[in-house]
Amino acid sequence: MFILVNLKAYDCNPVSVAETAARVADDTGARIAVAPQAARLGAVAETGVETWAQHVSPVDHGSHTGSTHTAAVEGAGAVGTLLNHSENRLKLADIDASLDAADAASLETVVCANNPDQIAAATALAPDAVAVEPPALIGGDESVATADPEIVRDAVDAAAAVDDGVEVFCGAGIATGEDVAAARDLGADGVLLASGVALADDPEAVLRDLVDPL
Amino acid sequence: MFILVNLKAYDCNPVSVAETAARVADDTGARIAVAPQAARLGAVAETGVETWAQHVSPVDHGSHTGSTHTAAVEGAGAVGTLLNHSENRLKLADIDASLDAADAASLETVVCANNPDQIAAATALAPDAVAVEPPALIGGDESVATADPEIVRDAVDAAAAVDDGVEVFCGAGIATGEDVAAARDLGADGVLLASGVALADDPEAVLRDLVDPL
Amino acid sequence: MFILVNLKAYDCNPVSVAETAARVADDTGARIAVAPQAARLGAVAETGVETWAQHVSPVDHGSHTGSTHTAAVEGAGAVGTLLNHSENRLKLADIDASLDAADAASLETVVCANNPDQIAAATALAPDAVAVEPPALIGGDESVATADPEIVRDAVDAAAAVDDGVEVFCGAGIATGEDVAAARDLGADGVLLASGVALADDPEAVLRDLVDPL
Amino acid sequence: MFILVNLKAYDCNPVSVAETAARVADDTGARIAVAPQAARLGAVAETGVETWAQHVSPVDHGSHTGSTHTAAVEGAGAVGTLLNHSENRLKLADIDASLDAADAASLETVVCANNPDQIAAATALAPDAVAVEPPALIGGDESVATADPEIVRDAVDAAAAVDDGVEVFCGAGIATGEDVAAARDLGADGVLLASGVALADDPEAVLRDLVDPL
Repeated sequence: MFILVNLKAYDCNPVSVAETAARVADDTGARIAVAPQAARLGAVAETGVETWAQHVSPVDHGSHTGSTHTAAVEGAGAVGTLLNHSENRLKLADIDASLDAADAASLETVVCANNPDQIAAATALAPDAVAVEPPALIGGDESVATADPEIVRDAVDAAAAVDDGVEVFCGAGIATGEDVAAARDLGADGVLLASGVALADDPEAVLRDLVDPL
Repeated sequence: MFILVNLKAYDCNPVSVAETAARVADDTGARIAVAPQAARLGAVAETGVETWAQHVSPVDHGSHTGSTHTAAVEGAGAVGTLLNHSENRLKLADIDASLDAADAASLETVVCANNPDQIAAATALAPDAVAVEPPALIGGDESVATADPEIVRDAVDAAAAVDDGVEVFCGAGIATGEDVAAARDLGADGVLLASGVALADDPEAVLRDLVDPL
Repeated sequence: MFILVNLKAYDCNPVSVAETAARVADDTGARIAVAPQAARLGAVAETGVETWAQHVSPVDHGSHTGSTHTAAVEGAGAVGTLLNHSENRLKLADIDASLDAADAASLETVVCANNPDQIAAATALAPDAVAVEPPALIGGDESVATADPEIVRDAVDAAAAVDDGVEVFCGAGIATGEDVAAARDLGADGVLLASGVALADDPEAVLRDLVDPL
Repeated sequence: MFILVNLKAYDCNPVSVAETAARVADDTGARIAVAPQAARLGAVAETGVETWAQHVSPVDHGSHTGSTHTAAVEGAGAVGTLLNHSENRLKLADIDASLDAADAASLETVVCANNPDQIAAATALAPDAVAVEPPALIGGDESVATADPEIVRDAVDAAAAVDDGVEVFCGAGIATGEDVAAARDLGADGVLLASGVALADDPEAVLRDLVDPL
């Protein structure tokens, strides 16, 4: 199971969260990555933690002011990127072009989507993984362990029907190790977290609990 | 005169350009800043050059995946930001909100626009400066020194009619020191450059020529 | 005072609302216009009511699939258009280009914005009118007659400081004739309404109350 | 074979083109539809021609100023809609939501895309049809009859691999009856045309030639 911590634009210290994540990953052998703001990718990568971008632009080198070019992201130390997060929905054609740009910089890719049809569509674009963000779980208190299990299972099935080489992550409803285990049992290969780690009073305790069942 | 070098998503070494700009600024006393991709702000700022962002998002701290939050940009060492560049046009309401976000992080601001009416509109939002990008000069070989001088002068007048405390930069048509002098004589307080420096065979020679008339 | 009724994408009969508005305007001499969905402009214009578009695209004739071209809007019988409504915010450059496109089709224009700075910016683009939509009044129960009067007065002053030939409308907080009178007393030249008329049990009674103080 | 004529924002008389298309369809039994600007849907539908929208918004009834709501489009007489045309690319999530909105108004749907991966993604969202717009054919003089036939065949195969109940149209490179026949032979169920009909000196002659092989 892959644990990806999205720092969004939270009021947190990205380097401190990254150091904690690196320590827990080292201690436990779990795969934990941190996705900070683009501007802090370099500082996060220097901690040694696996570093991901939150987004990359669908562009090649050239005149693209204000873009997030994959070569710059890779140059700062990132090895992967989220795409089409629910807070940053992209045009279908731009997801496709961003995947090409990510490939050119050897970045791993996770495309988010929020129902089985969109998961199937995202899978057809051949990212490394897709992440299902069931609307009922986003930003709520409900967890994937207690919610209707069909929500994640249908996404896993929808992706597999198109291309079973694309992994499926659970992109919402994860707060505890029990949730990680539930996501794994539903067929997920990874989980996305955000404020549950980034804004926790004790991020290390949360991370250790998350990886405990692995 | 302020010289701002926009590295866009060019295939160049941002640290090398930044070191060169820092050296020329130190040697000559000219004010030269470099605006790299957000992901490379930290690396560029470490060279000691004045560092600017190419764009910031109109958001506060919070759930904004893939945004370019001003606190992250400031944390990476940037002291200013472009907004509404011709390659990254923004909603009017978002320019306003991005200016507020830049203020919160004490970033200087330059809002781009491409004709006197839009320059007046941008000035009404009270940035530190506006930059006029006359379409006839963008990406072309024509220089502001030889083009119709009314193009820049009308922008200077339009800004002054709304708020004479807002500086006006010339955002296109600058390649040589002669152009910088022409822009200054037309009332500009700064200039924006991009490929003319970033992709030059000898960026140092270009920069020294640019600041020569100052 | 100009009364503009925005039908948005409401579940209402646009022709019925238009017939009512035409009758009240005829009976009272008040200026009342109706802005339906683009697809229903022709049917609304056939009632004889003054017909406005909710939006037009910043394009000239050409290859613009899915655009709302001003010539098509004018061909359907519209004589004016809203722009940059809070539900349809536009890029600064696109507001400017949409105003040019509206001019080419002889459409009147009202550019919306939500604070005095943005009102000043919109005024600098020289529309026929601007409409201030104070966030505190949008979609709420508070009326402009009882809210802090500075909200509208500051917008009137901001517009006048840039160009006193541009009219100012009050774009929110209007439900009754008392509100229309309050907006007029604060310096507004018109008002925008939406659900208060479109979804009323008795639109005719609402409209007659609105125009009563005029 | 379905022939869909997209009038974009062309400087043409939509009613005249519609009358011509209706006449040719009646005379020949061919299925020909016309997609005008939203504002002219009513006038086009009155000619009796099969009428399509160029785009619809991913929204339900409600506060959506400037949207193109499917109920308004259907109320004006349209029976189908294009989505995600190359001139109006949509977010993946919005294509999905627009398809739901189109379903609610019983509109047929054609989702455009420009390569086999995106065609597969669009097919996964279960529209009635997808239309492949090979970039090499868009706006050029090359025809699908003479271009590399793999371009269309790969799209047909990509769609069939996901859902063979979704039809595939050829969205570019069609100018003559020979092209229509070539598209049909490559597996296409329909074709999209635009300026070749809308801006023709003699639209009737073009349409009669197009349907001649059917």
